[in-house]
Amino acid sequence: MTAAAQTPVLDQLRGLLGDDGVREEAQPGLPQFILKPRSTEQVAGVLKLCSEAGQALVPIGGRTGLVDGLAPTGGELGLSLERMAAIEEIDTDNRTMTVQAGCILQVAAEAAEEAGLLLPLDLGARGSATVGGNVATNAGGNRVIRYGMMRDMVLGLEVVLADGTVVSSLNKMLKNNTGYDLKQWFIGAEGTLGVITRVVLRLRPLPRSQNTALLAVDDFDKVTGLLHWLDSHTGGTLSAFEVMWPDYYEYITREGGNHRPPLPHGSAFYVLAETLGADPEEDAGRFEQVLAATLEQELVSDAVIAKSQAERNALWEVRDDVLDLFNLGPIIPFDISVTIDRMPGFVDEVQHGMAAMSSPICVIFGHLGDSNLHLILGSREPAEFDHAAIESMVYRIVENHEGSVSAEHGIGLAKRDQLPRSRSAEELALMRRMKNMLDPANILNPGKIFSAS
Amino acid sequence: MTAAAQTPVLDQLRGLLGDDGVREEAQPGLPQFILKPRSTEQVAGVLKLCSEAGQALVPIGGRTGLVDGLAPTGGELGLSLERMAAIEEIDTDNRTMTVQAGCILQVAAEAAEEAGLLLPLDLGARGSATVGGNVATNAGGNRVIRYGMMRDMVLGLEVVLADGTVVSSLNKMLKNNTGYDLKQWFIGAEGTLGVITRVVLRLRPLPRSQNTALLAVDDFDKVTGLLHWLDSHTGGTLSAFEVMWPDYYEYITREGGNHRPPLPHGSAFYVLAETLGADPEEDAGRFEQVLAATLEQELVSDAVIAKSQAERNALWEVRDDVLDLFNLGPIIPFDISVTIDRMPGFVDEVQHGMAAMSSPICVIFGHLGDSNLHLILGSREPAEFDHAAIESMVYRIVENHEGSVSAEHGIGLAKRDQLPRSRSAEELALMRRMKNMLDPANILNPGKIFSAS
Repeated sequence: MTAAAQTPVLDQLRGLLGDDGVREEAQPGLPQFILKPRSTEQVAGVLKLCSEAGQALVPIGGRTGLVDGLAPTGGELGLSLERMAAIEEIDTDNRTMTVQAGCILQVAAEAAEEAGLLLPLDLGARGSATVGGNVATNAGGNRVIRYGMMRDMVLGLEVVLADGTVVSSLNKMLKNNTGYDLKQWFIGAEGTLGVITRVVLRLRPLPRSQNTALLAVDDFDKVTGLLHWLDSHTGGTLSAFEVMWPDYYEYITREGGNHRPPLPHGSAFYVLAETLGADPEEDAGRFEQVLAATLEQELVSDAVIAKSQAERNALWEVRDDVLDLFNLGPIIPFDISVTIDRMPGFVDEVQHGMAAMSSPICVIFGHLGDSNLHLILGSREPAEFDHAAIESMVYRIVENHEGSVSAEHGIGLAKRDQLPRSRSAEELALMRRMKNMLDPANILNPGKIFSAS
Repeated sequence: MTAAAQTPVLDQLRGLLGDDGVREEAQPGLPQFILKPRSTEQVAGVLKLCSEAGQALVPIGGRTGLVDGLAPTGGELGLSLERMAAIEEIDTDNRTMTVQAGCILQVAAEAAEEAGLLLPLDLGARGSATVGGNVATNAGGNRVIRYGMMRDMVLGLEVVLADGTVVSSLNKMLKNNTGYDLKQWFIGAEGTLGVITRVVLRLRPLPRSQNTALLAVDDFDKVTGLLHWLDSHTGGTLSAFEVMWPDYYEYITREGGNHRPPLPHGSAFYVLAETLGADPEEDAGRFEQVLAATLEQELVSDAVIAKSQAERNALWEVRDDVLDLFNLGPIIPFDISVTIDRMPGFVDEVQHGMAAMSSPICVIFGHLGDSNLHLILGSREPAEFDHAAIESMVYRIVENHEGSVSAEHGIGLAKRDQLPRSRSAEELALMRRMKNMLDPANILNPGKIFSAS
């Protein structure tokens, strides 16, 4: 039994939430007891009780985070919003939807689509991740270049502060300059400043066409040139620009693997580009014209355009089959950003660093249009795998290139020690002041992003 | 001489900035003495001195604000960044620009365009407004539906806190989830939380086509339907959807006025719609097709498409000649938001309220796609003009419709008393806590947004 279970606060919480409102779990990396409020009022009651008792909490969404954001650091209770999962409203006039924070992303996206609208956030964990978790971590994903991150889709939210105060900022208007934009404080704060209970999301017109191609490119300058050419000639419709280095592409499409290669091996880069447009017939022709021009200019050396949904899926599966990389051996997945001009130098240094290790795994891909790279680094020989050495090498190179140690996954516990590589002492001091102001007793996801001391 | 001039702090500031670093002015609504630092270090020095002396400051940009954001409330000094106006970098690889806060918006936009890129913010005051002021007020303007407000264009910033601490967050990456997104705290805070000294802006591909039309629409449901149809069928290129009520359109295009009517009088609504695309030839044909479909569906009853830049300018001049309305008599310009479904009821109540006054002026137009309306209300008989009665009527109706008392102009002193109509007690309490945390001595633009007490 943890400290929490023995305290009278758990009995009080059972009284507040009912017996079925507290669940005991035994999952590693999660608190032992999970509270399951049914309403904002119950969340407020939980926080008020916990605040008075000094009982810390970990807000829990769909458990799809990658930075140890839910791990207890000393007797925290879990606070799951799984019973607050309703879609409260889809407003087709204003093109917004209001959902409770526990709503699954895919459920929200499908409901929007049924109403003829698009909730643009899209990521691999869509079937489990919650909207509240997506907001708390400012989720990114596959369409950031077109629609932005989760922050850009949030018009309003309701949040419960550490002391139980409910702050309702359920704005539905695109323009609203009435004082400080409070919702921004909580988006991406990883549950350390308040518990998000409701969200108003901006919806977009549902795209009426989708065009997808895989392109082979000879060098990095041409990758940059291609990004700029496509973005400039597709009139605001470019929604994905995913780059795969050959180590990625050639492994995923290897003989005997899960995917046949849509383009032959041997190129320096492979780019998956996609547009989301308005006119199924005209857009396809235009997409072909724009790509033809990139071939003429020799920005692209080879191209395959998806001619059916099945072909489109096959291209995306090459990009998305990241789990296959775990078959290479013990690896660390990295999520970092560097500016595009820094990327070749950055990758070069990482590859050199890995080459000096024994039996290295070094696989690189990413959302290049968003300055975001994912690195899969490790060793084909489990005995040779040196987690600490790889991590410290990579983050040192990130720091040298003025990059970000987290592009879209956040900090949690996992990257806490790396944060000073991307943020100055003044920035960190300001973050701590905010934390101390809104959560002076440090009961909200303590120790995440930065340590309490 | 004001209190400030007599204090030793002004001598200290002259010592820091040099004699030409302090200017005496005698402009109403502005502080008497204006400080003109040349560098972030000098701004930091000014704030440190003023912080120690309890000397309050008003940060001054291009002086184009509309909510009394620069007025001294008791002996403040002005802090103008006019000598910090450099464009420090245009990074075409990463499509960003870094400017000092005093840079004029139009200068920045033209520099971006020369580099083949678009700084999307566009507003009437572009020739005087500064980028720093635009960030501090989260400026909106004509293209919000496509590109968002200034907040959406800021990737990074440098800000000097009240105590002189320089916080440099000059991020250039689209994705960066490393702890709290501090820059959001200062965007739209109207200079009350810190002095913005440098800004990194995201640039976009320069549009290669522009298509503009004026459309007559019979009723408000069709206006909403038209917005959704155009947005859905122009594939992300719709950049303006400006609506004029007949009182606006018929006055601006009256006989003997400055503009001939592009469409005849007598319609219920006039909509100026514009797309910014990628292909000059194809986009024009497509724009015509999309509009033809709106005529077939009777969403639109009449339409004129600009066939030249001169015709486009003529259409925009009808929408932009707001100053002509000042010839009607004494008026108050309002900048408010209500959700689109609420607009007809809101406008109806305002029109009824005005009809009950003598010789009313009641002219309505706005960025409907952004839920933002501008109301020009007054009386043709100066003696009958009752400023307080009109203002209290309008803001009461805004409140009843859960609207925003400021869509894009901010709060300043002018709307301070109205703020509680759009923000809850909990929201206002949170704003005050932030203000107290970052500016405990209340030296940064005191009394703006909310009073100090």
